[in-house]
Amino acid sequence: MSVYYLVLAYDGTAFNGWQAQRRATLRTVQETLEGAAAEIFHTKTKITASGRTDAGVHALGQVCSFSARTTIPPEKLAECFNALLPADVRVLESGRAAENFDACRSAKRKTYAYSLYFSRRENPLKERYCVRVSGTPDFEKMLAAAKMLEGEHDFKAFCAADSSAKTTVRTLYAVRMERERCFTGEELRIYVTGNGFLYNMVRTVVGTLLDVGFSGRSLADVERALSAGDRAAVGRTMPAKGLCLLSVEYEG
Amino acid sequence: MSVYYLVLAYDGTAFNGWQAQRRATLRTVQETLEGAAAEIFHTKTKITASGRTDAGVHALGQVCSFSARTTIPPEKLAECFNALLPADVRVLESGRAAENFDACRSAKRKTYAYSLYFSRRENPLKERYCVRVSGTPDFEKMLAAAKMLEGEHDFKAFCAADSSAKTTVRTLYAVRMERERCFTGEELRIYVTGNGFLYNMVRTVVGTLLDVGFSGRSLADVERALSAGDRAAVGRTMPAKGLCLLSVEYEG
Repeated sequence: MSVYYLVLAYDGTAFNGWQAQRRATLRTVQETLEGAAAEIFHTKTKITASGRTDAGVHALGQVCSFSARTTIPPEKLAECFNALLPADVRVLESGRAAENFDACRSAKRKTYAYSLYFSRRENPLKERYCVRVSGTPDFEKMLAAAKMLEGEHDFKAFCAADSSAKTTVRTLYAVRMERERCFTGEELRIYVTGNGFLYNMVRTVVGTLLDVGFSGRSLADVERALSAGDRAAVGRTMPAKGLCLLSVEYEG
Repeated sequence: MSVYYLVLAYDGTAFNGWQAQRRATLRTVQETLEGAAAEIFHTKTKITASGRTDAGVHALGQVCSFSARTTIPPEKLAECFNALLPADVRVLESGRAAENFDACRSAKRKTYAYSLYFSRRENPLKERYCVRVSGTPDFEKMLAAAKMLEGEHDFKAFCAADSSAKTTVRTLYAVRMERERCFTGEELRIYVTGNGFLYNMVRTVVGTLLDVGFSGRSLADVERALSAGDRAAVGRTMPAKGLCLLSVEYEG
């Protein structure tokens, strides 16, 4: 048995997230991949991702790992998977990993991108991957709030109430904002890099930044959310479709 | 009766193009809009676009016009249509037009964008609006070919054989290429502006530029296509999904 990794991209629209569900009627990325793996390796193969993505969340650089016994050259596994997978999930890269590699436990940093556009009316060419917001927020204020979130903090206030995480302390290495020109119209991309994320955390961070940008909340609210874990001080959880797991970094 | 115009954006994926079909089972943009117009104006209303778009072709700035008798303020028509339209077509703007305005006959210039990305493997987050090409073409050669196409030429070689156009002479004001950074990876956008386009012309222009970029055809082939109307000298017709009608310009 050897350990292998895959780098994956998927359009989350038609997936009920990463994790296999008890109800077989719900299509998930994990089940879809494990189905292909079973065909390739002729045996049930458990595939572990760097972390679960929720229903509707996209990925450009999700990483997963599994153990298998095969004579297929590691870099050719991508082709084998892609021949069996549906079009909305693709293996971008495959390879052999160290024996102790685990895509989830070995992950050191992850970067998510959240995509927004500001418009009175919907743009049908953006609606699949981008969330529309009416009006124009104060980007300087959003940036100030983003800076406050960087560093090690207790992000308790930013996670869904039903989170089962042992600790809610996480480090955000960077919360960057970029106004990106796009032929379909400008988009605001919010890039969040951290050592780990609580359930719904990125989506709540973005909702909070927007609230600050539209003066619905103040920088003092953000401060209180971080210092006192005050859930009432954070913004709404933004829709899944704007979120994309960009990359996962490992040591070495 | 007054004349009105609408500026439209649509995701062409699930439409069988602009034009209403005899077979009512095929969903088209025109029929969808005329259905909404019939509800708003309580009478059958014919809607004319700047030009038909083919099945699968997208639009960000399609313009259409119609005559109607209504007390709804012209700028509020957008809201009325959007309340009735499905999510993949939106009215971005509405207004009153001159009595002699016809979205098709009055159009002076149109600009299309064609979106490509260069990758060995599919990117599921690009596949809906962008066409994947393996390998990297010679952009300088493509640019040289693009420059040759600018100006007034007989584009007979660049249109589908079944075109019913009276004349195949058209003027291309600009054929521009831009390598655009995008968070999902770089894209090549080819912008084509002209006074009119033959059936499949933009898609064939892009196919020809790509062939030149990959040395499948030479600049001499492009020259022969333009001067002798030699259909064998042009490239393949590229898929519809990469094409988007960006804007239509009118006089004044």
